[in-house]
Amino acid sequence: MDDLNKPFLITKSLYPENQETPIKFLPHHLIPTNYHFKRNHFNYPKILTQNFLLPISGEVVKSVTFYFNQIINFPATTFTGLLECAGNNRSKFDPKTFGEQWEEGAISQGRWRGVSLSKLLSQTGLTTDAKEVLFEGYDFGKREDSDNYVPFARSLPLKIALHPDTIIAYEYNDKLLSIKHGFPLRLIVPGWYGMASVKWLKKITVINYPFTGPFQAIDYVYYPKDIEPFPVTTTNVNSIIQYPLNYSILDAGNHTIEGIAWSGEGDITTVEISFDGLHWSNAVLLKNTTEPYTWTKWKYQWNALEGEYTIFCRATDSKGRRQPMNAFWNKKGYGYNATPKAHVKIT
Amino acid sequence: MDDLNKPFLITKSLYPENQETPIKFLPHHLIPTNYHFKRNHFNYPKILTQNFLLPISGEVVKSVTFYFNQIINFPATTFTGLLECAGNNRSKFDPKTFGEQWEEGAISQGRWRGVSLSKLLSQTGLTTDAKEVLFEGYDFGKREDSDNYVPFARSLPLKIALHPDTIIAYEYNDKLLSIKHGFPLRLIVPGWYGMASVKWLKKITVINYPFTGPFQAIDYVYYPKDIEPFPVTTTNVNSIIQYPLNYSILDAGNHTIEGIAWSGEGDITTVEISFDGLHWSNAVLLKNTTEPYTWTKWKYQWNALEGEYTIFCRATDSKGRRQPMNAFWNKKGYGYNATPKAHVKIT
Repeated sequence: MDDLNKPFLITKSLYPENQETPIKFLPHHLIPTNYHFKRNHFNYPKILTQNFLLPISGEVVKSVTFYFNQIINFPATTFTGLLECAGNNRSKFDPKTFGEQWEEGAISQGRWRGVSLSKLLSQTGLTTDAKEVLFEGYDFGKREDSDNYVPFARSLPLKIALHPDTIIAYEYNDKLLSIKHGFPLRLIVPGWYGMASVKWLKKITVINYPFTGPFQAIDYVYYPKDIEPFPVTTTNVNSIIQYPLNYSILDAGNHTIEGIAWSGEGDITTVEISFDGLHWSNAVLLKNTTEPYTWTKWKYQWNALEGEYTIFCRATDSKGRRQPMNAFWNKKGYGYNATPKAHVKIT
Repeated sequence: MDDLNKPFLITKSLYPENQETPIKFLPHHLIPTNYHFKRNHFNYPKILTQNFLLPISGEVVKSVTFYFNQIINFPATTFTGLLECAGNNRSKFDPKTFGEQWEEGAISQGRWRGVSLSKLLSQTGLTTDAKEVLFEGYDFGKREDSDNYVPFARSLPLKIALHPDTIIAYEYNDKLLSIKHGFPLRLIVPGWYGMASVKWLKKITVINYPFTGPFQAIDYVYYPKDIEPFPVTTTNVNSIIQYPLNYSILDAGNHTIEGIAWSGEGDITTVEISFDGLHWSNAVLLKNTTEPYTWTKWKYQWNALEGEYTIFCRATDSKGRRQPMNAFWNKKGYGYNATPKAHVKIT
């Protein structure tokens, strides 16, 4: 057969290539590379010899340029972690917002392996003026709001940059990163939305001022209606219903409602199901307490009688954050995490 | 690279396998088989020796069972034709309707090759009681509304069945049909919504009564709000905007708005563009007058100034049918053809 019985990535735009994971149809704990969502700002960079060098300079005691094989020879840090695009579910905001119209698939999860950035910074040292760490990728191009070429670049506060699980990654699911996902080196910042995990790392600069590049101070900023703008950082508590599908028609009888829930801060403590948005019952969590950066699978047994239903689902994390019924609207459409719904008819 | 820079089919459900064509991203006049949308009611049938026989019986002078290689040795009829699923764009109905939530990609087009059904029927003859021709596929299963196993089966009025371009097809784009698209033999009824083009043909029966199987008299029937139900037959006049994408952000300057338009009855005579839904200007049609069953590409040059815009597009066919501003709502969500819109921001 020329094509197997399987889902594929869902294209949202070709140039740059933005494709979402068919997340409703994937039971995997580790999403294979070819199902990992792609979110690009520019065309893919060409991989040249120089890409295998990683200079660290700026507010350091000693600038160091690391070679790729030095980096892979440091003791490694490995964890399974999810990445969610800050614009995931943007298409669901009401009023609608401009930008890539992601549905629920701008999220994936896999095993990342790399070296703690803190290990590299312990080789360079930091001056007392060090405030942020700036990451620049090899990807660059023109934005709609300017005629200048700019690279994709983002900074992290020193505290986050020095966290032992902030890594310079070189493997995904036990293979070298694929070219489309940041080969040879990318940053991984677990718990933060995906924009923080800069791909195709070109250089790292420790800086003594707040970085204000366009992907830091124009994009990836929440612009709410009535309050001051503030930056997009950690992943909101969120969930999806993988079964049943929205507007599906099902036989009466037993069905297992199921899905996943996640948070960039703390663990998922409860997932609740409701059929009216008012009364809630706990779903069963299939927790994996040794993997703090992964999503939690959940299930709910339902004996469905004939009729039409709306299934609601909401997750709560150990920081007490709970999914709202209505999304927190902001002009650029980031951080959508309203309770998902599935409308079904039972016949 | 493990995956090329390309779109893929978009999965709507896995069992049965329903996937739509990434039509916004395909410039092809002939959609390759692996990009043709899949719409199944049941699991794929197994292909066995018996599938290579096609019996025609019922209200005929002489029942005949045709062998596959008899069928391919008749003089062939070849044309390029589109198939659109009757549920295409169902997700856009308001109020929403149950069923597969197709967006705009349940449409494809390619070159079909087969034998005119009328040639086969001229071998069997017809009795004077012949009223309809019934087509049964090898695909079968349980529906949500019954515990019985039923095959996918549909009938055609004699007049349509005898049209010279109603064919028993065995090739798509100059290759044998793929297993997922009806191999070895399927019906193609140009101008009609896709449900008429029964796949994996098992048998043909000429009948003297109106067929009332569930895919004829329960599904594929328009159930409007205030008027009597009536059957789904020919494809409505319709169009899509392929560029620009909805809610995209573009540079000021020249842009070519483009897309395709089609009708199951007659030719596309005009495609009009509007920026307010009131004032309309003609797009340029790239007509292909020798291919009556294909879509028509259209283009419109736009010098875009800064601001936010809604682009409307509407097609008219040579029968005088024109796309409405609002869809004709019906309970099962068939035949959606409201004017498409693309909201864009120019910066």
